[in-house]
Amino acid sequence: MAFQGKKLINNPDDVVTEFIEGLVETYPGLQYLDGFPEVKVVIRADASGATYDKVAIISGGGSGHEPAHAGFVGEGMLTASICGDVFASPSVDSILAGIRAVTGPMGCLLIVMNYTGDRLNFGLAAEQARSEGYKIETVIVGDDCALPPLLGIAGRRGLAGTIFVNKIAGAAAAAGLSLADVAAEAKRASQMVGTMGVALSVCTLPGQVTSDRLGPGKMELGLGIHGEPGAAVADLQPVDVVVSHVLKQILSSETNYVPITRGNRVVLMINGLGATPVMELMIAAGKTVPKLQLEFGLAVERVYTGSFMTSLDMAGFSISIMKADQTLLQRLDAPTKAPHWPVGSAGNRPPAKIPVPLPPSRSTKSEESLSRPLQLSEQGRILEAAIEAAVNAVMGMRDSLNDWDSKVGDGDCGSTMYSGATAILDDMKKYYPLNDAAETVNEIGSSVRRAMGGTSGVLYNIFSKAAYARLKANSDSTVTAKQWAEAFEAAIDAVSKYGGASAGYRTLLDALIPALSVLKERLTAGDDSSTAFVLSSEAALAGAESTKDMQAQAGRSSYVSASILATVPDPGAMAAAAWYRAAALAVKAKYEKASS
Amino acid sequence: MAFQGKKLINNPDDVVTEFIEGLVETYPGLQYLDGFPEVKVVIRADASGATYDKVAIISGGGSGHEPAHAGFVGEGMLTASICGDVFASPSVDSILAGIRAVTGPMGCLLIVMNYTGDRLNFGLAAEQARSEGYKIETVIVGDDCALPPLLGIAGRRGLAGTIFVNKIAGAAAAAGLSLADVAAEAKRASQMVGTMGVALSVCTLPGQVTSDRLGPGKMELGLGIHGEPGAAVADLQPVDVVVSHVLKQILSSETNYVPITRGNRVVLMINGLGATPVMELMIAAGKTVPKLQLEFGLAVERVYTGSFMTSLDMAGFSISIMKADQTLLQRLDAPTKAPHWPVGSAGNRPPAKIPVPLPPSRSTKSEESLSRPLQLSEQGRILEAAIEAAVNAVMGMRDSLNDWDSKVGDGDCGSTMYSGATAILDDMKKYYPLNDAAETVNEIGSSVRRAMGGTSGVLYNIFSKAAYARLKANSDSTVTAKQWAEAFEAAIDAVSKYGGASAGYRTLLDALIPALSVLKERLTAGDDSSTAFVLSSEAALAGAESTKDMQAQAGRSSYVSASILATVPDPGAMAAAAWYRAAALAVKAKYEKASS
Repeated sequence: MAFQGKKLINNPDDVVTEFIEGLVETYPGLQYLDGFPEVKVVIRADASGATYDKVAIISGGGSGHEPAHAGFVGEGMLTASICGDVFASPSVDSILAGIRAVTGPMGCLLIVMNYTGDRLNFGLAAEQARSEGYKIETVIVGDDCALPPLLGIAGRRGLAGTIFVNKIAGAAAAAGLSLADVAAEAKRASQMVGTMGVALSVCTLPGQVTSDRLGPGKMELGLGIHGEPGAAVADLQPVDVVVSHVLKQILSSETNYVPITRGNRVVLMINGLGATPVMELMIAAGKTVPKLQLEFGLAVERVYTGSFMTSLDMAGFSISIMKADQTLLQRLDAPTKAPHWPVGSAGNRPPAKIPVPLPPSRSTKSEESLSRPLQLSEQGRILEAAIEAAVNAVMGMRDSLNDWDSKVGDGDCGSTMYSGATAILDDMKKYYPLNDAAETVNEIGSSVRRAMGGTSGVLYNIFSKAAYARLKANSDSTVTAKQWAEAFEAAIDAVSKYGGASAGYRTLLDALIPALSVLKERLTAGDDSSTAFVLSSEAALAGAESTKDMQAQAGRSSYVSASILATVPDPGAMAAAAWYRAAALAVKAKYEKASS
Repeated sequence: MAFQGKKLINNPDDVVTEFIEGLVETYPGLQYLDGFPEVKVVIRADASGATYDKVAIISGGGSGHEPAHAGFVGEGMLTASICGDVFASPSVDSILAGIRAVTGPMGCLLIVMNYTGDRLNFGLAAEQARSEGYKIETVIVGDDCALPPLLGIAGRRGLAGTIFVNKIAGAAAAAGLSLADVAAEAKRASQMVGTMGVALSVCTLPGQVTSDRLGPGKMELGLGIHGEPGAAVADLQPVDVVVSHVLKQILSSETNYVPITRGNRVVLMINGLGATPVMELMIAAGKTVPKLQLEFGLAVERVYTGSFMTSLDMAGFSISIMKADQTLLQRLDAPTKAPHWPVGSAGNRPPAKIPVPLPPSRSTKSEESLSRPLQLSEQGRILEAAIEAAVNAVMGMRDSLNDWDSKVGDGDCGSTMYSGATAILDDMKKYYPLNDAAETVNEIGSSVRRAMGGTSGVLYNIFSKAAYARLKANSDSTVTAKQWAEAFEAAIDAVSKYGGASAGYRTLLDALIPALSVLKERLTAGDDSSTAFVLSSEAALAGAESTKDMQAQAGRSSYVSASILATVPDPGAMAAAAWYRAAALAVKAKYEKASS
């Protein structure tokens, strides 16, 4: 199936000039020469040929490989980048304009990728500039390891290894070296690096039709960066296998493309070809490093993973391996303001992983105390009665809750709440430290977490944890009604914040918020605790019933029509009102019994 | 057409852990907690909860959005990132492990994107951590502007604007602010930013089949970052139109999503969704900035263009706009070691473009001298005779050259050479400054450049420019035979270097290299100039004839069989030998005439 390639562009003829406009909007350290459409040159805003006191470093070539090379212009890397049209060498005039704009008395190094057009046009520009009195050197980079070595001119294509050469030359120039020395370092670097690419798709030129060369389930090995067919087509393999194949080819001792042997130090680049997500590039990086270490006996000193030299929207990556020594690492690590040179790859490598930290020791203490006390305090007895009443109320409502939920949700509210309630009852008998109210509330949360699935399980867990944290803040072991109310408020706030619901959203909060409101009001008015709890539980019931009149704002109920919703209350709110009401009545009964 | 999405991965279940392994191989400043597969937490290698003296900043969520958030871990931004499975919220235990690993006495801010799962799991972890004694605050980010404002919980999704919140919180923490102050800055930032996305393709989950939801020529507006359908499907438009639509929606005064009005200062993020090339992102950036300035009256202070918060391999981008003030810009500009925070966007913006520099003044001088001298010097007369003889020889060979070329190339060698020769003859009569040999050679190059197309035109131009540069280096106006030989050698070297051919490649160099060799030899032996030239021209002829025995290494001839090649010499070499021979004989004739 061939179709017009989809791109977010305007006129296909304007992609390069519009790219440059966006680039300089993004990076205030860059400027361009006012010579569109022919002259498309990006330069450092702070480097002018009239005053520039370092060797200027210029690279360039056809566009379509962004961020290369314009994204590598900046102090410590390129001084200028010459942009051709998509996959077309820039004109001699364009190259000359770039040379004239940034070259000072120290001269200029042209870094040229090994393609005939680039070699000739940069070459002619170099000769012209020399004849104008500029000191010019050129280095031609051909790092491709995909094709068998040829005697002839075509030779090895320039690929992503060129980025390394740009960086090394840029750092050497920034260090104040002479043109001859900078050129020598660049040339040496170009002889140390090998690259090979793998693609899952063919790139589409702006305004053109996408090639259907590669079918589903196929990949190309050893492709170029201009949509050239690869050296081989193969069935798509796991990236592990792909990486092994590519490494064998680059490091082959038969072709001897790169002078790398066991025991050498190397740096690695995993380069995305335009449409490959960072996730996949990182996966490849993670597989390549141990292979280089274990299978090839190499020390991997640096890893650069990202999309540096692309081929428009091609899916795939290339792997570049470069022999490294201390000088070269120093050049690669040297600071640069080039916006697309990767950050954070320098420096020594600590162990990749560290142990998961244990919970703080406080938890250990509480585990020791995790057993049902032999003797319950008065507060412990009241708490036990309240919890028992609350879970029994919920368990007794299983069928009603399921029935309501089947009309407005997925019908399992009663069963879910029943599971949680059962777990609380069982665990309480086994080990709740009932004389410690805060820890008991915490354990209710843990029981719920184990037994209840879904959103309601998490919300009740948040409820318990928030109440626990508030209760723990009290220094006294006896919890006053006011402190219970504060814990209740903290719990409601947490559920509202993380659950995202407020009053009127047809959730459990429509039972709990009115209850809290009345509880605080009655306590402030001076009511005794048990009366305040019972009165507030009536507000909870009324609030839950009122959900019939509410439009759902959350969960599955939000897809149910208002006419159906009006016939049933929110089951979550009814369950909350039920356990709160039962607990309040149990507290009142205990107090009455205690005082009778 | 639905097909298995092609990805460079291994087991789809391992993509997140393998991503993390590659990430820490790439960035030595990062580590991960040894808790795979459940605990997937990336942390700063230099931050340990036991000793960390700043507020820890933690973000996270489902994976598939790389580099978010793990790529933003580093001094000055995130302290840890919690990675869920692809598009799935991380577990509470995983979040807790991250909190415990990096949180010190200053506490921890959790930055949570507004999705139910994340809100609940981060919320529960926050409450649990508080109950363990940690100081925790959370900020929930919902910056989506695609859907009409809802009263309900779902609300606005968290999108790429979260990256800004991460940066601002990280910078505030690095500045030593308290947890409350850091949280306040993060919350304020989250209320200032709006985002909307556009997609050309639907993302494919690892191991799953690619959706064919979006047809050719269509785009989705207002999508999420988990493959959710967009708010609208539309015909693909130029990116100019797309940008206008998105900006109107984000900055709508009806929905009032962001508190931005005319005259405000803003920052902009153009965020790629995973498979969008830098070229397209930059084009969008270049179109967005002037629209914000001119149509919305906003001052655009910073532009961040790149792929920061992706959706696996989705093609498309989102635009985020954030209201900015001095404090916020300071936070955004503050240094960070987070590897994927964009570099080079800070600072004041100089003019985008500067004039193309003029050729250096030396050229102006030479233009003044560009006219045929009224009186020719002796050297001028000899030069004129040599050039005239050379071009006449080439013109006379047109048919032979075309005939040979038709057998081994594209048949136009004679015609191309004839065009160049005619131009040289015409221009010489008009304005060659024949008394200045160097400038005359330079003008020969210019005539060739104007008149001759193809590779041979560029190569002869390089030849002339290199010879010119060498001749110009002489201080004396009279050129000795030795200096001619040096210029000849520089010219041959340049052609070899930029053209990529050497002796034996079946090119014009097979005539010129033997000629140079004999010329140098004879001059060293003490022969007079004209004899040396004539002898060397015999070597040129012999060399050209010898190309019959050579296999072509360059150009179209390299596709021609050896048996055919053996019947014809290389036409380029024959032409070169012819003009060199004719020039040498003319020089000899002039000298003989002068001395007779």
